[in-house]
Amino acid sequence: MAEADFHGVFPYLVSPVAPSGEILEEVLRRLCDDLIAAGVQGLTPLGSTGEFAYLSWPQRRRVVEIVVAAAAGRVPVVAGVASTTIADAVFQAREMAALGCDGILAALEAYFPVPDEGVVAYFTAIAEAVALPVVLYTNPNFQRADLSLPAIERLSRVPNIRYIKDASTNTGRLLSILNRVEGRMEVFAASSHIPACVMLLGGKGWMAGPACLVPRQSVELYQLCRRGDWGAAMDLQRRLWTVNQVFAKYSLAACIKGGLELQGYAVGQPLPPQPPLAAEGRAEVRRVLEELGAL
Amino acid sequence: MAEADFHGVFPYLVSPVAPSGEILEEVLRRLCDDLIAAGVQGLTPLGSTGEFAYLSWPQRRRVVEIVVAAAAGRVPVVAGVASTTIADAVFQAREMAALGCDGILAALEAYFPVPDEGVVAYFTAIAEAVALPVVLYTNPNFQRADLSLPAIERLSRVPNIRYIKDASTNTGRLLSILNRVEGRMEVFAASSHIPACVMLLGGKGWMAGPACLVPRQSVELYQLCRRGDWGAAMDLQRRLWTVNQVFAKYSLAACIKGGLELQGYAVGQPLPPQPPLAAEGRAEVRRVLEELGAL
Amino acid sequence: MAEADFHGVFPYLVSPVAPSGEILEEVLRRLCDDLIAAGVQGLTPLGSTGEFAYLSWPQRRRVVEIVVAAAAGRVPVVAGVASTTIADAVFQAREMAALGCDGILAALEAYFPVPDEGVVAYFTAIAEAVALPVVLYTNPNFQRADLSLPAIERLSRVPNIRYIKDASTNTGRLLSILNRVEGRMEVFAASSHIPACVMLLGGKGWMAGPACLVPRQSVELYQLCRRGDWGAAMDLQRRLWTVNQVFAKYSLAACIKGGLELQGYAVGQPLPPQPPLAAEGRAEVRRVLEELGAL
Amino acid sequence: MAEADFHGVFPYLVSPVAPSGEILEEVLRRLCDDLIAAGVQGLTPLGSTGEFAYLSWPQRRRVVEIVVAAAAGRVPVVAGVASTTIADAVFQAREMAALGCDGILAALEAYFPVPDEGVVAYFTAIAEAVALPVVLYTNPNFQRADLSLPAIERLSRVPNIRYIKDASTNTGRLLSILNRVEGRMEVFAASSHIPACVMLLGGKGWMAGPACLVPRQSVELYQLCRRGDWGAAMDLQRRLWTVNQVFAKYSLAACIKGGLELQGYAVGQPLPPQPPLAAEGRAEVRRVLEELGAL
Repeated sequence: MAEADFHGVFPYLVSPVAPSGEILEEVLRRLCDDLIAAGVQGLTPLGSTGEFAYLSWPQRRRVVEIVVAAAAGRVPVVAGVASTTIADAVFQAREMAALGCDGILAALEAYFPVPDEGVVAYFTAIAEAVALPVVLYTNPNFQRADLSLPAIERLSRVPNIRYIKDASTNTGRLLSILNRVEGRMEVFAASSHIPACVMLLGGKGWMAGPACLVPRQSVELYQLCRRGDWGAAMDLQRRLWTVNQVFAKYSLAACIKGGLELQGYAVGQPLPPQPPLAAEGRAEVRRVLEELGAL
Repeated sequence: MAEADFHGVFPYLVSPVAPSGEILEEVLRRLCDDLIAAGVQGLTPLGSTGEFAYLSWPQRRRVVEIVVAAAAGRVPVVAGVASTTIADAVFQAREMAALGCDGILAALEAYFPVPDEGVVAYFTAIAEAVALPVVLYTNPNFQRADLSLPAIERLSRVPNIRYIKDASTNTGRLLSILNRVEGRMEVFAASSHIPACVMLLGGKGWMAGPACLVPRQSVELYQLCRRGDWGAAMDLQRRLWTVNQVFAKYSLAACIKGGLELQGYAVGQPLPPQPPLAAEGRAEVRRVLEELGAL
Repeated sequence: MAEADFHGVFPYLVSPVAPSGEILEEVLRRLCDDLIAAGVQGLTPLGSTGEFAYLSWPQRRRVVEIVVAAAAGRVPVVAGVASTTIADAVFQAREMAALGCDGILAALEAYFPVPDEGVVAYFTAIAEAVALPVVLYTNPNFQRADLSLPAIERLSRVPNIRYIKDASTNTGRLLSILNRVEGRMEVFAASSHIPACVMLLGGKGWMAGPACLVPRQSVELYQLCRRGDWGAAMDLQRRLWTVNQVFAKYSLAACIKGGLELQGYAVGQPLPPQPPLAAEGRAEVRRVLEELGAL
Repeated sequence: MAEADFHGVFPYLVSPVAPSGEILEEVLRRLCDDLIAAGVQGLTPLGSTGEFAYLSWPQRRRVVEIVVAAAAGRVPVVAGVASTTIADAVFQAREMAALGCDGILAALEAYFPVPDEGVVAYFTAIAEAVALPVVLYTNPNFQRADLSLPAIERLSRVPNIRYIKDASTNTGRLLSILNRVEGRMEVFAASSHIPACVMLLGGKGWMAGPACLVPRQSVELYQLCRRGDWGAAMDLQRRLWTVNQVFAKYSLAACIKGGLELQGYAVGQPLPPQPPLAAEGRAEVRRVLEELGAL
């Protein structure tokens, strides 16, 4: 664990589910294979785009099982753990470790508001339950519990809480976090941030749904940033940003699943009552992917 | 089903859980017995106060099993069903019916926003899955999916969707709903509304956590309203409102569990990382209950 | 001042402005006359519906001058005072008193958030600047500074702060206020509350835009409530609520001005860039007014 | 006008007001002189930090008069215009032009929500009223009217609307704007964005309060970005960000005024009921300025 160094592009994988509820192994394996071939540095099942909030525990377990097998050690698998209770989150994290994951992406779900004390207790319990690096995941748009700066600072002192993925739209907050944790924690961007900006700030990479659709271009952008070739990076970033914009406009999971269908991956639709990507959205996704040479 | 007529005071039951995760049958049965003895017209397990969002499915199932056995047909049991997917909600509703519940309290959880079309599909599927009256439950403070007036109107045309419990703080919305559904749907208040006002508007009663602690006084208020004795009703209402205020101030489940502990029901604490009721809150709950003769 | 007893229906008057910026005296006088003839108990220029936030100080002054002259002592005139600074609010309040107003409706505008200490200082300064009863006006939907319960309690101890008009949609808050101020302050409803409910709670009446359009029916509702004839009150209330609903749906000032135009008062349009009431809204207002016999 | 090229660091000037309401000319002139000597590329009176929302029109006029005289043509003066009505905004803009300003920073204030049509009409009217470059100013945190992307695109086609200053915290939105306006409009950052990131995206500079306190360091950061020396820029940016953080934490105007007082500028306090910077905030501002060598 000590040597683990997560960096680069980690696509937020979709979860292809048959109407029967079964996870579609074949297409998920092929997607993982193709993403690895395209050069991504890691895989993240059960993020927002992976519809974790819509899957039963057996479904979540199965998704991760398939992804770990598909990755076959070529890239690290950082699997999502999310719950409203400490007990259930600890259970999930241990199972993920047992399945062979390389890291945990930990989110807190909530119905009633949770004070900082509870937030810190929740994430600390997850970290202490596993011998894996933990990535904190905070998404103030969709979750009811946000991570305050003081809570993040306290959590940065837990040895294996090593990363944070912030999915707010507030890029300035990332610099505030970096200034505050003084190297004890690294930052990953989400699709709501401009990856090139986060890399300039000292970020490690990004974990995001759009990378499923434009993996090669995402990896290229990452390399340009790493080399400090900011002019070329921004040229590519400007074009790639259209993907993020279209995903902010339509529902995340519907968009990525819709785009993958256009690319020939029969991943199906988001789980009802989530609507599938409508005709207008599909046309816009198609146009964006064509412009980027991703179709 | 056609004859079912839900009305009056339906306490939102707490879910007493041992640290091991087991549901505490003994204390839950005794609470149900005492509430029925105090005159409540129904019981509602797995509402917000029942921490449905913090319980596993086996725990939810067990809570309802105990409550149905305790009620023993003396009052109707309207059990909570809540999920992010139609498939899971339909599964839950069928199980609740099989357990012997008399009605379903249906809520929609969401991670991504859901358009009206999906909201209507979700609740309609639940209603069509069971031969029981369905109560729509909307809580814009804690849920991410609100029910719009047009969606409510459409749902009021589903034969067994017969009631709505609105837990917003917007009392005017209740009159808008009543005007719009033209008798096809009845309204229950939540702890965020003033019960006497909702009764004046033509409401059927209320489903709320505070009634666990002051059942006798709640039933008395209901009777005064039913008799149209508004002066006496408001005298009592003014005093009872302090209970709702203290519950809005502290976290709902923590407060009701804390208050029940003071009354001698060993229901324990809310599930971590939810904080237990702190000393200051406990003192305030104690004072409020003493003033109302409920301690 | 000690004897002042504001109660009943206080229409929130519109401010008719010519394209040149001049206040249209003729139509404003006629509206005041007709409202008094219809039985309203007071007049309130420069509320939200009066577009106070869109008028220059000379325009505000002129509106009040006309209304005071039109009222001619027959009913009290409670004029709006609103500013971001204490100095300007005190200046406005003194001018309103000098113009012959009978009370001040005081609102706090803000750009940056204001802590309770500042809120209390602001309203206290207004009250101390005049020998008139002051009505606190809080509108969390449109203002950036809300009045907390502790701030309201502190302000209720200022001798001539005698009333509060709460324009939230949270009716329960009104009972919380009444319980807390223990008779030192009285409550008026706004168009966002159901007047009959607020009267049941012990309210003094309502200050609202819709009363400009249905003054006779509003006064009738008030009388029914005062007599404790709640059944008849609710019958009328249910029908009148359609007016409030349509005003919540469209922009307040545009709706009342549009409705008055239909009734033959040439009050013009809201000040640009506010949009006038569009054709669809006009048709709906017409229908609502016709159903109530107000056209 | 055609040649105007606003770029670099434009400090948002404070408005020093005596208790009598008079603008303190002496200290404002000295501040302007010192900022110009420190190398800033422009001056912006009557932004948020300038408390425009708390000043009367004569006070606003006087502030600009003093700043224009102090600048004496050495750097452009871009003065704030803000109102709820088109008529008043056009009046203000013409006066600002007559006073000798080089550009207009235009904001829309609102009480009721304004549809895009009205937003576009408002800014277009300002632009057509003057022969000066116009900077759109949108601050979703404090204003009630935000500028949508479609509205921005439409406004970018008005010839002299040449810039936009976006004070949201959403940095991704800036890239969306830049992609959309295709060179017809340039972007300035606000204190809520990380200037180095905005420069990387192709921004022209920043208009912000903190630059009043650290003008030399701000100009140095701007030069590093312009030279493409991103490593050195980020080193400086990381340290400078503490100023922005402290200003986000405390109230903007109070903080800048408090910091300037520490630096020996007797600019006084924000206008009541805004609170002055309290002892704790003053200590934090002092520490931050000392660390940056700005005290």
